[in-house]
Amino acid sequence: MMPYVNIRITKEGATPEQKALLIQGATQLLVDVLGKNPKTTVVSIDEVDTDNWGIGGETVTLLRKRK
Amino acid sequence: MMPYVNIRITKEGATPEQKALLIQGATQLLVDVLGKNPKTTVVSIDEVDTDNWGIGGETVTLLRKRK
Amino acid sequence: MMPYVNIRITKEGATPEQKALLIQGATQLLVDVLGKNPKTTVVSIDEVDTDNWGIGGETVTLLRKRK
Amino acid sequence: MMPYVNIRITKEGATPEQKALLIQGATQLLVDVLGKNPKTTVVSIDEVDTDNWGIGGETVTLLRKRK
Amino acid sequence: MMPYVNIRITKEGATPEQKALLIQGATQLLVDVLGKNPKTTVVSIDEVDTDNWGIGGETVTLLRKRK
Amino acid sequence: MMPYVNIRITKEGATPEQKALLIQGATQLLVDVLGKNPKTTVVSIDEVDTDNWGIGGETVTLLRKRK
Repeated sequence: MMPYVNIRITKEGATPEQKALLIQGATQLLVDVLGKNPKTTVVSIDEVDTDNWGIGGETVTLLRKRK
Repeated sequence: MMPYVNIRITKEGATPEQKALLIQGATQLLVDVLGKNPKTTVVSIDEVDTDNWGIGGETVTLLRKRK
Repeated sequence: MMPYVNIRITKEGATPEQKALLIQGATQLLVDVLGKNPKTTVVSIDEVDTDNWGIGGETVTLLRKRK
Repeated sequence: MMPYVNIRITKEGATPEQKALLIQGATQLLVDVLGKNPKTTVVSIDEVDTDNWGIGGETVTLLRKRK
Repeated sequence: MMPYVNIRITKEGATPEQKALLIQGATQLLVDVLGKNPKTTVVSIDEVDTDNWGIGGETVTLLRKRK
Repeated sequence: MMPYVNIRITKEGATPEQKALLIQGATQLLVDVLGKNPKTTVVSIDEVDTDNWGIGGETVTLLRKRK
């Protein structure tokens, strides 16, 4: 009942269309797997600055530069 | 002890005064119901872009347009 | 639209009645301050073990013992 | 890069197989829509007690009883 | 002011002593890097069941079995 | 496995260098205390506007003014 999905990605140019697809897809996933009511499924997307996101102890900003 | 409240709303023009009321009200709620110490109650508000928030499989941006 | 509130408290015996009051109160707060629709306001409560919650660099378990 | 997805549902008997499908599906969604690397996509599922989840100002426990 | 840190790990036997070290260390990190007041720094730890945590599209439960 | 750390601070001028140190330090903490693999440790930092963060029932914006 009333599932809530939060998707966190780095802020690197996801378009409104792509975000709409993420919201649609995550909602459908809950319907397909758990039979949840899509009308009351909430999805939010957080876009995080590459300075504020790290993996392996380094910011994504630095990882991108090195490549 | 030290409750933490997070309020997520769509970014649609909440004023600083409204946000101050949300923080005050959420803090008071914890005091009234659970006897928590207001001095150590933390509240944060996340304002999410309407492109990044969905319900019923659609973004709020699209829902607003259709109405 | 569709606000989402998350309340994190230490797991120290909040009753179902107290949780119901937190959910009712948080929902009403969003109605009063921002005119949100209560029917689509979602509230979740996380109860965190006192070993897993810290303030001032110490777990609540240890803080409780010292008092 | 390194998307993180959190799915919050009420604790009402989702099986390990269903959870595995949620994790698989959410990961695939990020691949399909944003071309993310599945190997570094993290998904977590929170199952919330029906006493601790509310909609419309009421706990799911009470909503279930009334039906 | 009042930083809040949330650490999510798989539930695989972290001891109260290890959790106390995580809380102490995270608090000290905020002091060292940003000069935050440790007295008002809050840290919470979420231990997530291996069925509820996935990477690369698979649950940690399955990943552990395969190894 | 795959720990996820989220650090929430007020948006008050943390530099990219300071954020890199937070990410490095949080990752190292998980390695030191729990022996986690740094390569798969993810850290995100949320910088919250001082209007959107409260303690003691007041926004940080107002607390800063009064001082």
